[in-house]
Amino acid sequence: MAVFRPNHYYCIKDKIYETERFPSSEAAVSIAVLDEPEAVRLKVMTGEQQKLLEAGKAIRFIKYADYEDYLFCTFHIPLQKNIRKEYAELTMLIREKLLVIVVQNEAAAFLLSAFTPRYGGRVLNLERLLAELLESFVQNDLEYLGELEDRITQLEERAMDGEVTNFNHQMVHIRKELLYLHNYYAQFQDLADCFQDSENDFFVENRYFRYLSDKMSRLYGECQMLREYSMQVREFYQAQVDVKQNTIMKFLTGVTTIFLPLTLITGWYGMNFAGMPELNWKFGYPLVILVSVLIILLCIYIFRKKKFF
Amino acid sequence: MAVFRPNHYYCIKDKIYETERFPSSEAAVSIAVLDEPEAVRLKVMTGEQQKLLEAGKAIRFIKYADYEDYLFCTFHIPLQKNIRKEYAELTMLIREKLLVIVVQNEAAAFLLSAFTPRYGGRVLNLERLLAELLESFVQNDLEYLGELEDRITQLEERAMDGEVTNFNHQMVHIRKELLYLHNYYAQFQDLADCFQDSENDFFVENRYFRYLSDKMSRLYGECQMLREYSMQVREFYQAQVDVKQNTIMKFLTGVTTIFLPLTLITGWYGMNFAGMPELNWKFGYPLVILVSVLIILLCIYIFRKKKFF
Amino acid sequence: MAVFRPNHYYCIKDKIYETERFPSSEAAVSIAVLDEPEAVRLKVMTGEQQKLLEAGKAIRFIKYADYEDYLFCTFHIPLQKNIRKEYAELTMLIREKLLVIVVQNEAAAFLLSAFTPRYGGRVLNLERLLAELLESFVQNDLEYLGELEDRITQLEERAMDGEVTNFNHQMVHIRKELLYLHNYYAQFQDLADCFQDSENDFFVENRYFRYLSDKMSRLYGECQMLREYSMQVREFYQAQVDVKQNTIMKFLTGVTTIFLPLTLITGWYGMNFAGMPELNWKFGYPLVILVSVLIILLCIYIFRKKKFF
Amino acid sequence: MAVFRPNHYYCIKDKIYETERFPSSEAAVSIAVLDEPEAVRLKVMTGEQQKLLEAGKAIRFIKYADYEDYLFCTFHIPLQKNIRKEYAELTMLIREKLLVIVVQNEAAAFLLSAFTPRYGGRVLNLERLLAELLESFVQNDLEYLGELEDRITQLEERAMDGEVTNFNHQMVHIRKELLYLHNYYAQFQDLADCFQDSENDFFVENRYFRYLSDKMSRLYGECQMLREYSMQVREFYQAQVDVKQNTIMKFLTGVTTIFLPLTLITGWYGMNFAGMPELNWKFGYPLVILVSVLIILLCIYIFRKKKFF
Amino acid sequence: MAVFRPNHYYCIKDKIYETERFPSSEAAVSIAVLDEPEAVRLKVMTGEQQKLLEAGKAIRFIKYADYEDYLFCTFHIPLQKNIRKEYAELTMLIREKLLVIVVQNEAAAFLLSAFTPRYGGRVLNLERLLAELLESFVQNDLEYLGELEDRITQLEERAMDGEVTNFNHQMVHIRKELLYLHNYYAQFQDLADCFQDSENDFFVENRYFRYLSDKMSRLYGECQMLREYSMQVREFYQAQVDVKQNTIMKFLTGVTTIFLPLTLITGWYGMNFAGMPELNWKFGYPLVILVSVLIILLCIYIFRKKKFF
Ligand SMILES: [Mg+2]
Ligand SMILES: [Mg+2]
Ligand SMILES: [Mg+2]
Ligand SMILES: [Mg+2]
Ligand SMILES: [Mg+2]
Ligand SMILES: [Mg+2]
Ligand SMILES: [Mg+2]
Ligand SMILES: [Mg+2]
Ligand SMILES: [Mg+2]
Ligand SMILES: [Mg+2]
Ligand SMILES: [Mg+2]
Ligand SMILES: [Mg+2]
Ligand SMILES: [Mg+2]
Ligand SMILES: [Mg+2]
Ligand SMILES: [Mg+2]
Ligand SMILES: [Mg+2]
Ligand SMILES: [Mg+2]
Ligand SMILES: [Mg+2]
Ligand SMILES: [Mg+2]
Ligand SMILES: [Mg+2]
Ligand SMILES: [Mg+2]
Ligand SMILES: [Mg+2]
Ligand SMILES: [Mg+2]
Ligand SMILES: [Mg+2]
Ligand SMILES: [Mg+2]
Ligand SMILES: [Mg+2]
Ligand SMILES: [Mg+2]
Ligand SMILES: [Mg+2]
Ligand SMILES: [Mg+2]
Ligand SMILES: [Mg+2]
Ligand SMILES: [Mg+2]
Repeated sequence: MAVFRPNHYYCIKDKIYETERFPSSEAAVSIAVLDEPEAVRLKVMTGEQQKLLEAGKAIRFIKYADYEDYLFCTFHIPLQKNIRKEYAELTMLIREKLLVIVVQNEAAAFLLSAFTPRYGGRVLNLERLLAELLESFVQNDLEYLGELEDRITQLEERAMDGEVTNFNHQMVHIRKELLYLHNYYAQFQDLADCFQDSENDFFVENRYFRYLSDKMSRLYGECQMLREYSMQVREFYQAQVDVKQNTIMKFLTGVTTIFLPLTLITGWYGMNFAGMPELNWKFGYPLVILVSVLIILLCIYIFRKKKFF
Repeated sequence: MAVFRPNHYYCIKDKIYETERFPSSEAAVSIAVLDEPEAVRLKVMTGEQQKLLEAGKAIRFIKYADYEDYLFCTFHIPLQKNIRKEYAELTMLIREKLLVIVVQNEAAAFLLSAFTPRYGGRVLNLERLLAELLESFVQNDLEYLGELEDRITQLEERAMDGEVTNFNHQMVHIRKELLYLHNYYAQFQDLADCFQDSENDFFVENRYFRYLSDKMSRLYGECQMLREYSMQVREFYQAQVDVKQNTIMKFLTGVTTIFLPLTLITGWYGMNFAGMPELNWKFGYPLVILVSVLIILLCIYIFRKKKFF
Repeated sequence: MAVFRPNHYYCIKDKIYETERFPSSEAAVSIAVLDEPEAVRLKVMTGEQQKLLEAGKAIRFIKYADYEDYLFCTFHIPLQKNIRKEYAELTMLIREKLLVIVVQNEAAAFLLSAFTPRYGGRVLNLERLLAELLESFVQNDLEYLGELEDRITQLEERAMDGEVTNFNHQMVHIRKELLYLHNYYAQFQDLADCFQDSENDFFVENRYFRYLSDKMSRLYGECQMLREYSMQVREFYQAQVDVKQNTIMKFLTGVTTIFLPLTLITGWYGMNFAGMPELNWKFGYPLVILVSVLIILLCIYIFRKKKFF
Repeated sequence: MAVFRPNHYYCIKDKIYETERFPSSEAAVSIAVLDEPEAVRLKVMTGEQQKLLEAGKAIRFIKYADYEDYLFCTFHIPLQKNIRKEYAELTMLIREKLLVIVVQNEAAAFLLSAFTPRYGGRVLNLERLLAELLESFVQNDLEYLGELEDRITQLEERAMDGEVTNFNHQMVHIRKELLYLHNYYAQFQDLADCFQDSENDFFVENRYFRYLSDKMSRLYGECQMLREYSMQVREFYQAQVDVKQNTIMKFLTGVTTIFLPLTLITGWYGMNFAGMPELNWKFGYPLVILVSVLIILLCIYIFRKKKFF
Repeated sequence: MAVFRPNHYYCIKDKIYETERFPSSEAAVSIAVLDEPEAVRLKVMTGEQQKLLEAGKAIRFIKYADYEDYLFCTFHIPLQKNIRKEYAELTMLIREKLLVIVVQNEAAAFLLSAFTPRYGGRVLNLERLLAELLESFVQNDLEYLGELEDRITQLEERAMDGEVTNFNHQMVHIRKELLYLHNYYAQFQDLADCFQDSENDFFVENRYFRYLSDKMSRLYGECQMLREYSMQVREFYQAQVDVKQNTIMKFLTGVTTIFLPLTLITGWYGMNFAGMPELNWKFGYPLVILVSVLIILLCIYIFRKKKFF
């Protein structure tokens, strides 16, 4: 069971149970999932923590602080497909045998409700629940990165076929997403490392956070590789644009080179000088035709040799 | 209370109080906020410290030295909005139970007067006051970085719509600011790390400086991300300039390719040769019209196929 | 002997032997090479390991997890020559005195069957077998990198001779392969380092994994060098494209500069004004010829001086 | 006092004194400032040290070797303003209670004579003297870097105003200087770190070398920032060159697009066909004038829409 | 003495002596310099070492392996001036009190024969001999790097004077050499570090390898600096090509802009309309001359203002 809903309480005793009271009277770990007004009403946070909650609203992705008697983390989880448009915003306050999750928008409520801990025979504890919860925040990210890779590959293939419109627009979008994801995973890995190395006594089994950190490291590395891939595709396209320009220039030069001499000749015999014997010479006109054809052939020969066409 | 004013004295006993004398007779930490002439008059600094004060006037942002019996830090805090135009210049001399702040210009006096320590129930001590004071120096920086991001995003959007004037001028300004801020935060983080790791006995609770270092690290990271973002936008614009050039070249080539052959034909039949039978042929003129139209159609067909227009 | 075949069992006692049962009753290390259905049927994996097996199907190259009582590694080994088209997919589960290899596709079965451990007089143990097996996965890679280098060198030489078609297409393929290989070796080295540093008791002689890690490091370095080399060749080609464009531009400018003035002159004396004394002047036509020749000579002189041709 | 002159001897006893003999008989630290012939004549160096002295003549900036019983450092100090043209060349041999400075050219003699130790009340010892001497080698460097920054800023401003001649030439000079300085400071910092970490017993108070290392680190960082700044300015200029080229292309295309159609029309009615009714039509000429004007207006309209001018 | 010749034996007892037998019966360190057939015949290598020898033939520069009871290093030393054309290939097997050098080609024999250890009064031991031998492999490299720097500087100067042919070809050669040298020194430094840190008991005085490592580090740094310098020169040339292109474009645009309007005018009055009063007007022809001159003057004025010429 255990779908985390706002303003419901839970406790962990090997497994996870919903409870009525908070904190639950027993020796178990208590969990409160609260929305912001309820968190304020219940006074679960000290004044200082309240200020941290406010300060957290300005962050980009993830911020954590490791205080002596509590851990405080703020999350702005980018929701895939339309990254940077919608974030699930939530805050976690961790104390000895206590986890308070403040749900700060609809998206966060939805994200929490989609989470179920997987405990295959093992005993559940706070660190394991937390690691699984945090991992659930990025559970579809590898797929999403795969989609981004497909989009880059498509751009690459279309650039190879020479039929790209809006290449630069599409590429700048992809690279922006990758830049932001790259920072997001770096910050998430820092958080996992902080949980793993924290000197407080809330967590016993640090290895769950090590696996989380490894996961983030893999996502970060994947992201980094896609950034380099996108860079290479961009450079390929740019190089193609340059090559294309040379082709256009060659065409222009070719057309100009063929027609200007011919036009000069026709202009020449269009002059109105009185004494131009060629004009009245019997073979004048046929010779001009011949010369014109020769010029065209010469140009074509030169272009072939210079690999213009 | 506690607005730090030049040439006033304060002491810390759990809270902060203004005092008449300096150092205050009690066992408390004494603070003197002095302007430069007053600092000289009171002889709060040794000859060597005086030299450090002078030497500090040439620095860019932040310099610190960790001597055996004192810490000496010089700050040139860039004031946002018009970065690199105005700096708050101040120097701190820290000894056992003593903090001397030398205010070196108006901006520094204003910066200090805007500071109030937030102590929510906790006891105040020197390290906490210092950390909060230093943090106050960058309190609006995240917002300012946000404004820079907005400016880059605007440039990006306008570049996408193709209506950019002075893109390069605006971008070079933004990137210069980011370059300087990037160095400023790096130096500030080094200072925080130095305070945290200092082996002297002035500070007991190092963790306040750790939080400060984390804050600087976040600002540094944000700044780094904006630098990469600005780089990507710049590259996008540059790529668009290249694509635009190809478009112009195609247009030029197209115009040239259509008109040069037609001009040749007209030149041809403008020649004054005596024996040009076409000129007097009945269908000469209509045929030239036809050929011209065919040439235009052929060109258009070729351009379509070569995706010129 | 010891060709690893799917659904056969082996054990290591100084040397490697094929056995009937799994695990072999003796105190030896047992090895099972299984295909996926057989692995499921025999229940060699716990539920959690089964989930790891599934999760591993989405990875790019290599994933490993170092649990308390077992090591779990998934391999997608790119098969050379047609990199990124075909992968040998297999998974290893390592427990105390136990190695289970799950063969997940035909290519993996082939890869395993091609492996023979080289033990020149030394005693075989699990770590040595593993290191040799993993090394066999990259045994032809140095040659393959050599082929990639040859391809880059060929592109370079052809670019130097100026006879490159599809340079960018070929280069983008090579760089993509190098990018992926670069990641592959990095991940493989991480695995080797993990095996070397693992705190479990499965492995005694870590140095075999150190040699493996050194091998991966060399492949990684080689790959990195080829990436830099390919970058330099790409930049050389790009620079040549730019130089070529200048050459074309110079040619176009030269042709235009020679013909436009001449065409103007011929147009001039093609005007039909009544009072143009030159037209009837005796030396009019010869002078125009002279002037035309002078213009051509002047242009050629200017082009020589400006190094146009 | 204490102006170091070639072929004079000094000793340190709290302060620095000039002496007649070398090494001075007392328990003080002895210093010899020698030119090369004198160093050879006095046999202050062993055969191996003599070889090191020779080998040092090929270095770029700084080389040091930390032997068991002596330290050996060679310095080629670039003299500012005309960097890479003139170097002060000197070598230091440090043994227990002994410092031999071999002055290898005029510039080095001048550099040494310009040095005075600043000891504000403190006691002088070998490490302090050395640190101050080495620091004096870079005492004007921050100012010089400031001048370089001003030169980059000037280039930037002139590039913004569009009135740059020889931008690339000036920039390549500045970047070369920064590249060399960047290496120089890196090597100097390595030397300072070596002195700080040296395991020999010549130095007691390592912190003087720490301050020296910090100073080098600041110079290195400043240099690095200027390199990035110069890169940004260079990229800005390059981008402006591209934008400028587009402007020129647009102008060329515009001129061509307006004149070619008009020229075609005039050519058309310059043909000598017998049956061209327009030529004799009453409104023929006025209509051609009208059409020409319409074409010009149409072109201007299109150019406005396409943002050509 | 001690010129190492193939198939001769040596021993080290404070100094180095040639001996008849191998290993020499005494307690000294034995050295054998062998060619490959002799090494096989004498069975100095185990089967595993023989395999390493074979495997070493595929490496690029340097490979080493640090086994428990022996060190095995393969060297492909690039011979300068024609780098990448000829390599001295040799292999070293180091055991307790034993050094076997297998000379694998002529170049290696020559390289060894050119080596003489410099021991100025000190006692010779294996580590010192090895360090000096390895150092002799790179003894002319600093000079060679100096020559490369001169070649880059020459390219730079010629690019500044604008008289470069084949700049890109020459630059790509230099950069390739630097890329390979950069890798070579990195691998050589790794070897020196490995020798220094090796945990076996063959070497007592590690510092000789530290000096070797420092030497490699200096060569690597020098190489890195030349790479950056070559990059800057390449960028300068590229920027000049761009500036040059703008100049050509301006020239083309200028020529076109002057001649097209004039050509239009001449075409205009070359039309054969019956009713063109200007043609018969007394001032028609002079006025056209005047207008043409005005157009030329106007163009020149515009070009001056737009800084075209
Ligand atoms: Mg980043
Ligand atoms: Mg990270
Ligand atoms: Mg990676
Ligand atoms: Mg990478
Ligand atoms: Mg690019
Ligand atoms: Mg920095
Ligand atoms: Mg930092
Ligand atoms: Mg970052
Ligand atoms: Mg940048
Ligand atoms: Mg990027
Ligand atoms: Mg790695
Ligand atoms: Mg490498
Ligand atoms: Mg490299
Ligand atoms: Mg790359
Ligand atoms: Mg490079
Ligand atoms: Mg780079
Ligand atoms: Mg490039
Ligand atoms: Mg460097
Ligand atoms: Mg350094
Ligand atoms: Mg820096
Ligand atoms: Mg930086
Ligand atoms: Mg870079
Ligand atoms: Mg650029
Ligand atoms: Mg390297
Ligand atoms: Mg290295
Ligand atoms: Mg360097
Ligand atoms: Mg650079
Ligand atoms: Mg660099
Ligand atoms: Mg770079
Ligand atoms: Mg880079
Ligand atoms: Mg460039």
